[in-house]
Amino acid sequence: MDSRNWENFLLPYEQAVEELKVKFKTMRSELKKREEYAPIEFVTGRVKRISSILEKAERLDVPMDNLEEGIEDIAGIRIMCQFVEDIRRVAEYIRSRKDLTVLYEKDYITNYKESGYRSFHMIIRYPIQTALEHKVVLAEIQIRTLAMNFWATIEHSLNYKYRGGLPGDMRLRLQKSAQAASVLDSEMSSIREEILAAQKTFEDDANI
Amino acid sequence: MDSRNWENFLLPYEQAVEELKVKFKTMRSELKKREEYAPIEFVTGRVKRISSILEKAERLDVPMDNLEEGIEDIAGIRIMCQFVEDIRRVAEYIRSRKDLTVLYEKDYITNYKESGYRSFHMIIRYPIQTALEHKVVLAEIQIRTLAMNFWATIEHSLNYKYRGGLPGDMRLRLQKSAQAASVLDSEMSSIREEILAAQKTFEDDANI
Amino acid sequence: MDSRNWENFLLPYEQAVEELKVKFKTMRSELKKREEYAPIEFVTGRVKRISSILEKAERLDVPMDNLEEGIEDIAGIRIMCQFVEDIRRVAEYIRSRKDLTVLYEKDYITNYKESGYRSFHMIIRYPIQTALEHKVVLAEIQIRTLAMNFWATIEHSLNYKYRGGLPGDMRLRLQKSAQAASVLDSEMSSIREEILAAQKTFEDDANI
Amino acid sequence: MDSRNWENFLLPYEQAVEELKVKFKTMRSELKKREEYAPIEFVTGRVKRISSILEKAERLDVPMDNLEEGIEDIAGIRIMCQFVEDIRRVAEYIRSRKDLTVLYEKDYITNYKESGYRSFHMIIRYPIQTALEHKVVLAEIQIRTLAMNFWATIEHSLNYKYRGGLPGDMRLRLQKSAQAASVLDSEMSSIREEILAAQKTFEDDANI
Repeated sequence: MDSRNWENFLLPYEQAVEELKVKFKTMRSELKKREEYAPIEFVTGRVKRISSILEKAERLDVPMDNLEEGIEDIAGIRIMCQFVEDIRRVAEYIRSRKDLTVLYEKDYITNYKESGYRSFHMIIRYPIQTALEHKVVLAEIQIRTLAMNFWATIEHSLNYKYRGGLPGDMRLRLQKSAQAASVLDSEMSSIREEILAAQKTFEDDANI
Repeated sequence: MDSRNWENFLLPYEQAVEELKVKFKTMRSELKKREEYAPIEFVTGRVKRISSILEKAERLDVPMDNLEEGIEDIAGIRIMCQFVEDIRRVAEYIRSRKDLTVLYEKDYITNYKESGYRSFHMIIRYPIQTALEHKVVLAEIQIRTLAMNFWATIEHSLNYKYRGGLPGDMRLRLQKSAQAASVLDSEMSSIREEILAAQKTFEDDANI
Repeated sequence: MDSRNWENFLLPYEQAVEELKVKFKTMRSELKKREEYAPIEFVTGRVKRISSILEKAERLDVPMDNLEEGIEDIAGIRIMCQFVEDIRRVAEYIRSRKDLTVLYEKDYITNYKESGYRSFHMIIRYPIQTALEHKVVLAEIQIRTLAMNFWATIEHSLNYKYRGGLPGDMRLRLQKSAQAASVLDSEMSSIREEILAAQKTFEDDANI
Repeated sequence: MDSRNWENFLLPYEQAVEELKVKFKTMRSELKKREEYAPIEFVTGRVKRISSILEKAERLDVPMDNLEEGIEDIAGIRIMCQFVEDIRRVAEYIRSRKDLTVLYEKDYITNYKESGYRSFHMIIRYPIQTALEHKVVLAEIQIRTLAMNFWATIEHSLNYKYRGGLPGDMRLRLQKSAQAASVLDSEMSSIREEILAAQKTFEDDANI
């Protein structure tokens, strides 16, 4: 590791993660109140581990004095949806916000990776006020269905272990399970309207 | 509704849910510390809504003065696992606990319901100390994989809307999506050993 | 009550309270990391109850279509400090923030109320992004020591009961207890430097 | 430090703290529902730091293989009350519980320490079910008013720094501030009945 004070370096990212989590959680409850249905199931967030930052910097040839611009996912937010359709709606809400700026998007749902990975990514700029300064940091928002998330979590740990050099049979099995996850999402989408109507009935009765 | 004080009636169940959630969450972190792998992904809990208690009492012909014995899931705990294999292990841990008693079990995994429902249920007795008294309440623990849970949540709201009278085509689609969820679980199980090893590597590196 | 949709009216205030709580809590942990001492003990927040909003509107002659500008504390944040000296420091941090604007301040510490009430108030404008719109709301930040807070909480409920018409003997007793709270604060201030040094030692050892 | 696995050693204590916090928090909300007044303001808990355990063991001559019986406050719970009178009521509730056993009590309120320390302590035995075993651990419950707690927190850090050898003038100042805290408690007690009535009015109106 280099000699920087990592604790201070990570402070604004930790703060960004905390604030963004609160913002998307209140967006969830707001939409639930307004429409009796929230396109967001739940929200998580994390700051990248120092060792992972360093590894990624090496892999992408990012100089150590440019980590803030070169590593875009030091602050990471993950938004889980019930249906594939909800993902686009959440993305639209994010694009229209005035408290952050979307830099660019990566659509791994229309174009899923060869590994089977599906997810929608948005790289944003987010302003942070610390006790000492006002600064703007990068953050990555990943939007996925529950099935996509389940699969991706497992693929992540396998990839981490094999550092990209996944054995062929395992790669095949992972692709097959990605397919199963995708079928599950499609089946759910096909009865989405019915499910939505049912969930609204459920909520209405709950409010009686 | 009958004239009982429902708030007081539900108090010990709310307390049971709070305590059991804490107990299974600490079990999760304990196992993660001891073995670098937790068979438990996350834990949720809820107290049944009054309207649902009354509906179930009518459906099962439970007299109103016997709700405490006749409705077994007023307090409900749900434990989510990564793999089907973890479910049996969690059940075994629950059976060996001395702070609760398992009354009986329902294995909807070996024998899944016609609807496609898969889950492992345990009905337990759990002692509760309120400010005023010491009493024993019933509670239901459901243990499932993430895929089972995803499917069951959706089926629940559909069934609620149609009160059991699900249209034929929707029943078919639900069965197909239950199958997709089941395939996903099987694929994951087939590489479980590899995934576990990978996750341990991941955790080890995190602790350096 | 008037016929407005109060739930929707209160939504941005609830969101403001959630965001501001997170911001001052992260300010607390940031300062603790940077200086081993945080001028903030803990932070609470609340949205004013509808009945209290209406009552205050009547008392202050605020027309019903001007609640957003006329009632400044619909969103309320309370910051508790260990020492009187910390209050000014926290206020200074708030003034320098770029994510909010201070409208005006009320210093009930230099000039405490006849009742014995001591506290530092700041009225701010805070921008909120909801799912549907971007708007700016008013909020009140109260900064106090723990002793001031203890006293004020109790005075608040007494005043509420007697609607301002507090019996003479009770007013006297409240003033006496306000004095005791003030003495406690002064005694603590007089050994503040020693206490700070001691708390730093404590933290240092905790990090070994 | 000795060679034991401290993480495993502390596990049951961490679990005890989590469970007891939940139990006293639900006791708080239960009493608030039943009586519109809770004798408990808030509850905190902590597991003693390893360095503090070792230091106390040395000071009290507790052999290293007898820490579990010799150090009674490895698991610590603190219950804060509004009024001195509430302390006895909370203690009575604890004595009547069947899910723990009170070993003995130390009443530093009737007999406050020379330093000015006031608090009510109960040493209890509490049964814990871990994933691997069922065991009984010791825990200390401290019950105090908010003013007692404020003072004690500060005295603790000063004592820690000077390891008991507090300079004479500081000891005097601490005694004076303990007196101020005590006066504050007495003044509050003298209007307790009025305050309770006022708080009930407040709660009642909140439920309309």
